[in-house]
Amino acid sequence: MSDKKYNIAVVGATGMVGREFLGILAQRKFPVGELRLLATSRSAGRKIVVGDREITVEETTNDSFAGADFVFVSASGQASREYCPIAAQAGAIAIDDSSAWRMDPKVPLVVPEVNADDLEKHQGIISIPNCSTTPVVMCLWPIHKVNPVKRVIADTYQSVSGTGKAAVDELVTQSKLVLEGKDAAPHVYPHQIAFNLLPHIDVFMDSGYTKEEWKMIHETRKIMHDETIAMSATCVRVPVMISHSCAVHVELTHPMDPDEARDILAESPGVTVQDDPSISLYPLPWLAAGEDDVFVGRIRQDASHPNSLAMWISSDNLRKGAALNAIQIAEELVKRSLV
Amino acid sequence: MSDKKYNIAVVGATGMVGREFLGILAQRKFPVGELRLLATSRSAGRKIVVGDREITVEETTNDSFAGADFVFVSASGQASREYCPIAAQAGAIAIDDSSAWRMDPKVPLVVPEVNADDLEKHQGIISIPNCSTTPVVMCLWPIHKVNPVKRVIADTYQSVSGTGKAAVDELVTQSKLVLEGKDAAPHVYPHQIAFNLLPHIDVFMDSGYTKEEWKMIHETRKIMHDETIAMSATCVRVPVMISHSCAVHVELTHPMDPDEARDILAESPGVTVQDDPSISLYPLPWLAAGEDDVFVGRIRQDASHPNSLAMWISSDNLRKGAALNAIQIAEELVKRSLV
Repeated sequence: MSDKKYNIAVVGATGMVGREFLGILAQRKFPVGELRLLATSRSAGRKIVVGDREITVEETTNDSFAGADFVFVSASGQASREYCPIAAQAGAIAIDDSSAWRMDPKVPLVVPEVNADDLEKHQGIISIPNCSTTPVVMCLWPIHKVNPVKRVIADTYQSVSGTGKAAVDELVTQSKLVLEGKDAAPHVYPHQIAFNLLPHIDVFMDSGYTKEEWKMIHETRKIMHDETIAMSATCVRVPVMISHSCAVHVELTHPMDPDEARDILAESPGVTVQDDPSISLYPLPWLAAGEDDVFVGRIRQDASHPNSLAMWISSDNLRKGAALNAIQIAEELVKRSLV
Repeated sequence: MSDKKYNIAVVGATGMVGREFLGILAQRKFPVGELRLLATSRSAGRKIVVGDREITVEETTNDSFAGADFVFVSASGQASREYCPIAAQAGAIAIDDSSAWRMDPKVPLVVPEVNADDLEKHQGIISIPNCSTTPVVMCLWPIHKVNPVKRVIADTYQSVSGTGKAAVDELVTQSKLVLEGKDAAPHVYPHQIAFNLLPHIDVFMDSGYTKEEWKMIHETRKIMHDETIAMSATCVRVPVMISHSCAVHVELTHPMDPDEARDILAESPGVTVQDDPSISLYPLPWLAAGEDDVFVGRIRQDASHPNSLAMWISSDNLRKGAALNAIQIAEELVKRSLV
């Protein structure tokens, strides 16, 4: 890489993913030139320290993207729909964290370890997958390459940080109230989340699936370039702060020994196998939080089908599920001279 | 029913399930004659108020069962192995909550709404299923009768009360510590359970499955009298006090409209359908706690197979998952003059 630096604008800089994005930029020593922090008018004027710079948050407007090389968008779907085309028009590459553009045929939907080549055809907007799709695809893809995936059942256990800071605050507040024997009224979610489970993430569709479940199914197919994969998911919010987990049952074309799957996943970039029942070693969301890798364990022959494997995955939804994946896309674009 | 009263001994009377058992006995006005509360020597001497009687807990011995009609055992596997045959020998019917006798061909494993007829062949010991098996079977059986189940994937979200009172206390203590920003050392479980998930219930087997997962698979087949059902499960402990939940994906012999499944389940005894996404109505463990019924919702055509349905189940693991099911068995035995 040359000494070139890249101007970056972050839409949603004060949100949980935005803050994580800024931390990871510094950690990975991404060559940042000008850094512009953008948010709604409500957050404009706040000052955020990034490395040795103190930066004042500005309100996002149509003129926010002049001179930017990368615009990272993690705000509302509305903000993504509005600002991504404007950023691309201004000559930047918009890397978007929302579902707004993911299924657009002109927009690459990328997990760099899986389908980095899709970046070659970008037209100014690139989407990152849903935070529950990415870890599953990270574990399916290396297996799919040697033994194609036919069918997937994925049941999730998703942390409240996937909803944002208000939801984390709500889990904290409600947990304290319940522990004091008091009622815990819901605000962010339709029901109490403390010491409870909500089988309801994003809106319901006519099929009875939620949009979150639909996203997992269709994003997996798009990223893996295989529309024939049969898939179902139940997405559940759990009283965990950070990290999404998932029980996966995957039917392959041929049988695969769990040891072979472990070996394949152990050699896959961005994946760490934690799988030794004899010492109670398996992925835990509490320990995955703050880590870059996707953790996978409980790998075993699925008892329901001779060609199937079962596994358990945990990963930090704010990092590989969002901010880290976005920065890896920017790094890949730089490496491929696509920016 | 006549005015006959039945003498009952409860082994494990001071445990969470034992206490629930005593409450439900009173609630259902079970015709209780003599009531003997048994536990280990550590709890002997404690006094428990049951209805208008105050009863002193006695240490369980080989002589504890003289004159008993029913002996309910919910203590350790060791206690079940030891005392159930002694109780049966003494002329009582032992209704056992442990896994010790469930797969014994001579022992009926019964959910009264499903296979009450199996009680006819009892030889003094009757098992109740694992607390995560019962709710799943309650929802599969009515469908199986009209459209046989071929394959089941069940991923659980199990509350800490399934482990016992020490685990509930640990979740409370650890939650408080985490909320105060302190470390929460694990004692009951191998890892912290507060704001975390443990994909580990009961011991690991050589297959990579846990004993809990194995139990769900084999108990389901035994209760439903169908060894051909292909099944897999991932059992996960979640930071919830009471009620187990489960995401179920069931493949049938023929396609079934979700509306038909809803109608069938709505008419099934002991099952309540909670399924209206438009008002965020679906089963919640927080609300299932303290209720007798198994709650099912999120019923939809499973997107991974034309013959499959997906659903979400919550139910009180201490009640239908344990104490209530045991009392229903006793009621059924009385009704059938089998005692």
